[in-house]
Amino acid sequence: MIAAAERRRRRGRPALDVDPTDKDRSLAALDRLSTLLADDMLGVNRIILDRMHSPVALIPQLAGYIVAAGGKRLRPLLTLAAAGLCGYSGERHYKLAAAVEFIHTATLLHDDVVDASERRRGQSSANALFGNQASVLVGDFLFSRSFELMVEDGSLDALRILSRASAVIAEGEVLQLATNGNLKTSESDYLAVVEAKTAALFAAACEIGAVVADRPDSDAESLRQFGQNFGIAFQIIDDVLDYSAREAMLGKTIGDDFREGKLTLPVVYAIARGNDMELAFWRRALEDLSQRDGDLDHATKLIEQHDGFAAAFDLARKHGALATAALMKLPNGPLRGMLADLVEFCIDREF
Amino acid sequence: MIAAAERRRRRGRPALDVDPTDKDRSLAALDRLSTLLADDMLGVNRIILDRMHSPVALIPQLAGYIVAAGGKRLRPLLTLAAAGLCGYSGERHYKLAAAVEFIHTATLLHDDVVDASERRRGQSSANALFGNQASVLVGDFLFSRSFELMVEDGSLDALRILSRASAVIAEGEVLQLATNGNLKTSESDYLAVVEAKTAALFAAACEIGAVVADRPDSDAESLRQFGQNFGIAFQIIDDVLDYSAREAMLGKTIGDDFREGKLTLPVVYAIARGNDMELAFWRRALEDLSQRDGDLDHATKLIEQHDGFAAAFDLARKHGALATAALMKLPNGPLRGMLADLVEFCIDREF
Repeated sequence: MIAAAERRRRRGRPALDVDPTDKDRSLAALDRLSTLLADDMLGVNRIILDRMHSPVALIPQLAGYIVAAGGKRLRPLLTLAAAGLCGYSGERHYKLAAAVEFIHTATLLHDDVVDASERRRGQSSANALFGNQASVLVGDFLFSRSFELMVEDGSLDALRILSRASAVIAEGEVLQLATNGNLKTSESDYLAVVEAKTAALFAAACEIGAVVADRPDSDAESLRQFGQNFGIAFQIIDDVLDYSAREAMLGKTIGDDFREGKLTLPVVYAIARGNDMELAFWRRALEDLSQRDGDLDHATKLIEQHDGFAAAFDLARKHGALATAALMKLPNGPLRGMLADLVEFCIDREF
Repeated sequence: MIAAAERRRRRGRPALDVDPTDKDRSLAALDRLSTLLADDMLGVNRIILDRMHSPVALIPQLAGYIVAAGGKRLRPLLTLAAAGLCGYSGERHYKLAAAVEFIHTATLLHDDVVDASERRRGQSSANALFGNQASVLVGDFLFSRSFELMVEDGSLDALRILSRASAVIAEGEVLQLATNGNLKTSESDYLAVVEAKTAALFAAACEIGAVVADRPDSDAESLRQFGQNFGIAFQIIDDVLDYSAREAMLGKTIGDDFREGKLTLPVVYAIARGNDMELAFWRRALEDLSQRDGDLDHATKLIEQHDGFAAAFDLARKHGALATAALMKLPNGPLRGMLADLVEFCIDREF
């Protein structure tokens, strides 16, 4: 308990003086899972590389850029782990895991499309390098490919789960547009966005593991619950890290959400607990997007002052516990332990 | 033959003095088909309206805008007609026809996404009204919904045909990006784009008619050939009309393709047959997109001068004949005659 409280307190402020071993521990959980599933993951990667091919040269070029940037392959790993946990030992789920990664990649590409009126981010996102149109179309291509892979697998259950998840993701992204710059966004508004745009694919990725293993509905439901809650926890931490991570460790720019006027959970808490002067600051920065030097630091200080990071961390922990509880309904074994560790460490991660 | 030559000659120049009965005749072919299939189309429209719904208000709002603008419902009509031609009399194909329309609508939405550096079109496209991001995400939603509808239908063959078509459409759109402003675009480059971005969905819409009717592969192949060639002819005429239609009849702005630097077939012919001075004009207008008042008129005159419209019209006719020939391999009946008329009149249309 003391260790958790200590960690939570540290999380409560920007991680400027983090113990580097945390990174190692967090990587270790992911690494151990990746190592155990290395052969399967090789199979999935082969399909990903093979099926992003097209005679239209720009497609593998742009898709390769974003797929390589994706890095962790967390979602297909969940499919592999879930299937393994259900006792499946074939190779059918490779295509489905690749389909999951393609849906995720398409979402990333479409996420980064900017409006003509908006300035682009500082970093080299795919759309900054290749343009909006190419990003949209290559996203469409990958999305179509993901359905081709599912059709090749032939499970209508997997198709149902993943087509539903895709529609929910799009709903979540549209819902997020409505919360951007909207200071009235509540904790439950935020959660509705996160459940749809992030957790739905985590849940689907896990659930199809039970489908390929031909397990009863109760196991599919437990895996869905695990993925759903893990996804929520994962996204909350992602949003906390957008203010507090060390840039070199996160591998992306700090403060993107702030600059885009996103009402993420730490901000939602800070606004709910802030006074009128603070509200005027948030309105100028997030609603009007009229930002000045030092605003990001000021925002971070306000969030800290109102325990916004700590409260977000608590909610992530709560969903992490729900994820683990769902997991415990499934057969015991090394994969179950590793998935529990993965949740724990994804919440504790500093990057 | 004389009538066809006469029509071809008239097509060879901008349709400023068109016989209005042509519009009536062309509408008549579409109307007769729509009337015959009115009950089925009602069923399809019910599904379209029902399934574009979402608790996220912006989705039905934007989707409704573009679905209503879509108007003709040509592609779902093809699915209904193809199924009817194959003797199918159930209602299974309503969902598949709606899925086809959703794919088309998603494509329209994504087609209109502009790059940050580009100016928007003059007209109120969905993305001009709602923004790039919303257009992309609602397109994704409709695309996902189309797969949900296919899964509900449960035919893996239909899923295979439409997921493949979706990937090919995206390839065609990316390929088109590469031909934009590229004066080296050949007739075969142009055809590769059109086959993928337009004809693939026409072909798939027809082919799934044979699938729901449980007809042999040879019928499915004939319908695919019909749709593919009809789609090519349809797009060629669409591209001709972008220079020559009367705006009020087309219901959209003339010259969009020219302003966007698109290398459509009439331009491809004019460039191939032009002298150095003309090449310099095309380079400035389409490659550099440095356009002045009067450029569109000048472009139209150059195309006319080199028989670009007439040559495009000839190629459309050729593919129309291939479409009809494929159709003739299928059972005779009123639907077959109407589909043949539809091809004829889509080629002859002035709007």
